[in-house]
Amino acid sequence: MHRSRINGVLIDCKVDDIEAAARFWAEALGRPINPAHPGTRGNYVMLEDRPGEVSVQIQRVEHESRVHLDIETDDIPAEVARLEKLGAKVHERLERWVVMEAPSGQRFCVVRVQRAGFDTDANGWA
Amino acid sequence: MHRSRINGVLIDCKVDDIEAAARFWAEALGRPINPAHPGTRGNYVMLEDRPGEVSVQIQRVEHESRVHLDIETDDIPAEVARLEKLGAKVHERLERWVVMEAPSGQRFCVVRVQRAGFDTDANGWA
Repeated sequence: MHRSRINGVLIDCKVDDIEAAARFWAEALGRPINPAHPGTRGNYVMLEDRPGEVSVQIQRVEHESRVHLDIETDDIPAEVARLEKLGAKVHERLERWVVMEAPSGQRFCVVRVQRAGFDTDANGWA
Repeated sequence: MHRSRINGVLIDCKVDDIEAAARFWAEALGRPINPAHPGTRGNYVMLEDRPGEVSVQIQRVEHESRVHLDIETDDIPAEVARLEKLGAKVHERLERWVVMEAPSGQRFCVVRVQRAGFDTDANGWA
């Protein structure tokens, strides 16, 4: 059995200044930037986590601006296979995560466990 | 003073069959469809709420598929004015909500309070 759940909301920004984009979203959503988070590095800025809530990360990207979801799991190959059976397709396999596309057209990523509370909150898949 | 916070993640689907799209996302995210939720009607399908977590709604749309965020507030005009000061622009004012666009290019909506826990969890803006 493996497990998975929503990890977070990723705000992909096609901008030159990722800090300015992160400041906007931090103020808009009322979640300050967390400079100490391991997810804050280079083109990535994490907003502060709220207990029990999904994470929010601002990312500088080259493609058009959009919002995407990440699914976190303790077994990436098993989760990708489960999602393929549901009709999703693999767009790109990277070293540490897999980019997939839903039958309804949205890209999302399958990532390793990142957010607190996974053990008690994730869904189990036989 | 008015208040606001993230309400939820909206999965906009340019599809003919919103039920099939909702079934995919329900299985993918491990959150069953909630047919009894007032947000499930016509082109909208709500997934089951998790305590303290943002809501997830699947929407049938005519524009390209994407994911967007909603911000909920007890004062829509005040919240729109706050977000405009941060650099967001109004895209469209509808009867019950306002569609805005972030400086980083993503559309999002400002809606009235919809999710449990607003009183204890929302941010206050002077």
